[in-house]
Amino acid sequence: MGLLKFVRLYSDKAARFVPTSGVYPKGYSVGGIHCGIKKNGNLDLALLKNEYGKGAVASAVFTTNKFKAAPVQLSSKIVKEKEGKNINSIIINSGNANAVTGTKGLNDAQSMVSATDKCLGNEENSTLVMSTGVIGNLLPIEKILTGIEEITKDENLGNSHEDWLKCANAICTTDTFPKLVTKNFEIDGITYTLAGLAKGAGMISPNMATLLGFFVTDAPVSNTALKSILQYAVDRSFNCITVDGDMSTNDTIVAIANGAAGGELIDQTSSSSTSYSILRAEITDFAQQLSQLVVRDGEGATKFIHLKVKDALSFKDAKSIASSIANSALFKTAMYGSDANWGRILCAVGYADVATADSVLPEKTSVSFIPSDGSEPLPLLVNGEPETVDEERASQILSVEDLCIEIDLGTGGNQEASFWTCDLSHDYVTINGDYRS
Amino acid sequence: MGLLKFVRLYSDKAARFVPTSGVYPKGYSVGGIHCGIKKNGNLDLALLKNEYGKGAVASAVFTTNKFKAAPVQLSSKIVKEKEGKNINSIIINSGNANAVTGTKGLNDAQSMVSATDKCLGNEENSTLVMSTGVIGNLLPIEKILTGIEEITKDENLGNSHEDWLKCANAICTTDTFPKLVTKNFEIDGITYTLAGLAKGAGMISPNMATLLGFFVTDAPVSNTALKSILQYAVDRSFNCITVDGDMSTNDTIVAIANGAAGGELIDQTSSSSTSYSILRAEITDFAQQLSQLVVRDGEGATKFIHLKVKDALSFKDAKSIASSIANSALFKTAMYGSDANWGRILCAVGYADVATADSVLPEKTSVSFIPSDGSEPLPLLVNGEPETVDEERASQILSVEDLCIEIDLGTGGNQEASFWTCDLSHDYVTINGDYRS
Repeated sequence: MGLLKFVRLYSDKAARFVPTSGVYPKGYSVGGIHCGIKKNGNLDLALLKNEYGKGAVASAVFTTNKFKAAPVQLSSKIVKEKEGKNINSIIINSGNANAVTGTKGLNDAQSMVSATDKCLGNEENSTLVMSTGVIGNLLPIEKILTGIEEITKDENLGNSHEDWLKCANAICTTDTFPKLVTKNFEIDGITYTLAGLAKGAGMISPNMATLLGFFVTDAPVSNTALKSILQYAVDRSFNCITVDGDMSTNDTIVAIANGAAGGELIDQTSSSSTSYSILRAEITDFAQQLSQLVVRDGEGATKFIHLKVKDALSFKDAKSIASSIANSALFKTAMYGSDANWGRILCAVGYADVATADSVLPEKTSVSFIPSDGSEPLPLLVNGEPETVDEERASQILSVEDLCIEIDLGTGGNQEASFWTCDLSHDYVTINGDYRS
Repeated sequence: MGLLKFVRLYSDKAARFVPTSGVYPKGYSVGGIHCGIKKNGNLDLALLKNEYGKGAVASAVFTTNKFKAAPVQLSSKIVKEKEGKNINSIIINSGNANAVTGTKGLNDAQSMVSATDKCLGNEENSTLVMSTGVIGNLLPIEKILTGIEEITKDENLGNSHEDWLKCANAICTTDTFPKLVTKNFEIDGITYTLAGLAKGAGMISPNMATLLGFFVTDAPVSNTALKSILQYAVDRSFNCITVDGDMSTNDTIVAIANGAAGGELIDQTSSSSTSYSILRAEITDFAQQLSQLVVRDGEGATKFIHLKVKDALSFKDAKSIASSIANSALFKTAMYGSDANWGRILCAVGYADVATADSVLPEKTSVSFIPSDGSEPLPLLVNGEPETVDEERASQILSVEDLCIEIDLGTGGNQEASFWTCDLSHDYVTINGDYRS
């Protein structure tokens, strides 16, 4: 079964989740072109350029997989060496992950960075690089270097909605729609803007799922504050989503701030600072929106599931329990089948990796469906005792695309976490198993 | 899609994996009857009775899930209180897991134990109890107690192949074939026998996967030696298999030894004792055979996959890496599609939970397919460098049912682990997602 069929199956998602307009932060330009990596002629090279001041601050989180792709190794080195300062661009290719490619792969990643810096007139190593696509193949580096000369030309860059959509499209691989989110927020009477894009989680060729994304703002933030905010936000967004539980060699999320919108520098890293708190909350919310689009585009997904674990002893416990449920094949297939199978939820809660013996107390655990229409929650288990479930109402709640399930641990610890996942469908197996047939 | 279709689909497995004869240890009798739990009239109550001496020694391992079913809680208490001595019977019902059933559930489990002890003339709490099936429903305890009176009658018990098959059938739920293994072995010129049965891993009703099993021998073993051997064997068998990574509330494996075949008591717990070493190796091999049958019957399974991780720093590292691959949905779907996708194997190696930074060294990692026909291994990755793979040969190797994949970590630690799993197929999703439709 080919890609086209899936594109047709899920094309209504593009209509629902790709915005038709957006707000864009000052001082950036972006673009996307076809440089010849993808055989079908689709866009495969993307660029973000900072145009404000001497250089923007950047922070990044990378995959913890031991088999790190060349661009991950290099970008992580650049961010570290420059302490997250004076980063002026991001160059991204799709169609080839430059992973498991040895010394040549590292050299190619460095060539992409150097060529971009040279064409944009940056100081050395001011560019971060990302790649996504097939693994184990060397990059067609000549095509990419020619592409970099092309994409850095003024006529290929801009800050309009269309430019951003082009950029978002150019980082897609088997995604069925480009993932782009923008928003405004205010601190001390000044309006700031966030714009970001992501790709994932699709894979059809013999490669791995990859999650790439970046977002940029025109707010004035120090490198240390941005680092602290990004870690907090990613812990509650990109690290709280799963499609199939597989962590790629290329996962990278970058945040960039150039201060182009003016205002006082946010350089605190404590929530006692109001401006830090506001920015952290805005970026976290933004990162959640962006990361949720990856789940929406999960391979074969027919359901979008929000898991909310409440009253845990710690955020870490709550997240671990939510992750355990979100990664359970039994839970995911039950959701696909619209089966109110609280037993499978409970089972996954029971084997989650939690900190102490008191983290999960069977006799205090409750599970409810929260209907998306705002009607009363449907309790399935209350304080460890099964409820007599109105199966008709349960089926009705589960028949819609957006589901929310609440697990109340009743520990008195009052900590909570949200996690987003999709179901496990026949199409997931088809996409990942039948590709070569 | 109903159960019947699957029974047809997989019925050839019964012909291949259910033995037509067996060898049975001295001093035991077993049976299986229908007591009225299963609506389709299938066998649903099983009994093992020790007939030799005053009492057998027993050891057991139970699920570590926090939501432990009532029979798990009670059996674990009995084994502990009696220090694994004077256990004379096991009573098992299928069709209802007696899980998440509160105080009434615990009372019901105790009633099953007490009734069995009384009917068999045992001293109090000489029986272990197991249950498997739907969760959240109270047991039809009256039917079961009447059934216990029936099954404990001499005419319903015996030590023939047919009696053991009946017993193995009576613990099945959605299994497509009963799982029974027997074998002889020798220590110091005396022939001993092992027989055992297991159920899993099928679930169709709103419940959880359950793995139950027990095996018995007529070798003379102390309670402490048996405990040590069982833990070692289970770590290398039942804890080295996965179908979907979900750990149930009811998982229980029991080993019983009555010494009926005579010989010197094995009471060492050190591998410097020859008889202990032989028994441990025999029981480990036996437990592997039995546990592998559960993978053979994995829901929707079309492939049986042996993962062998070599040259790790520790057994724990090796097992963790094998488990990471075995539970990867991407790996499992690739195997279903006979896709030589070494990228997905590498990816799962890279995110496995290992002890140190040196546990996985990308530049020393090699991956090969080991053909089941005994021909030369097919290297996919050698010391972190991808090989040019002969895709035709890879497809040929992957087209058979039994696959073996070897991951050589090259750490110099020389420790290894084996793990067994099945693929993730369309039928898995159908069985677990479409049940109610």
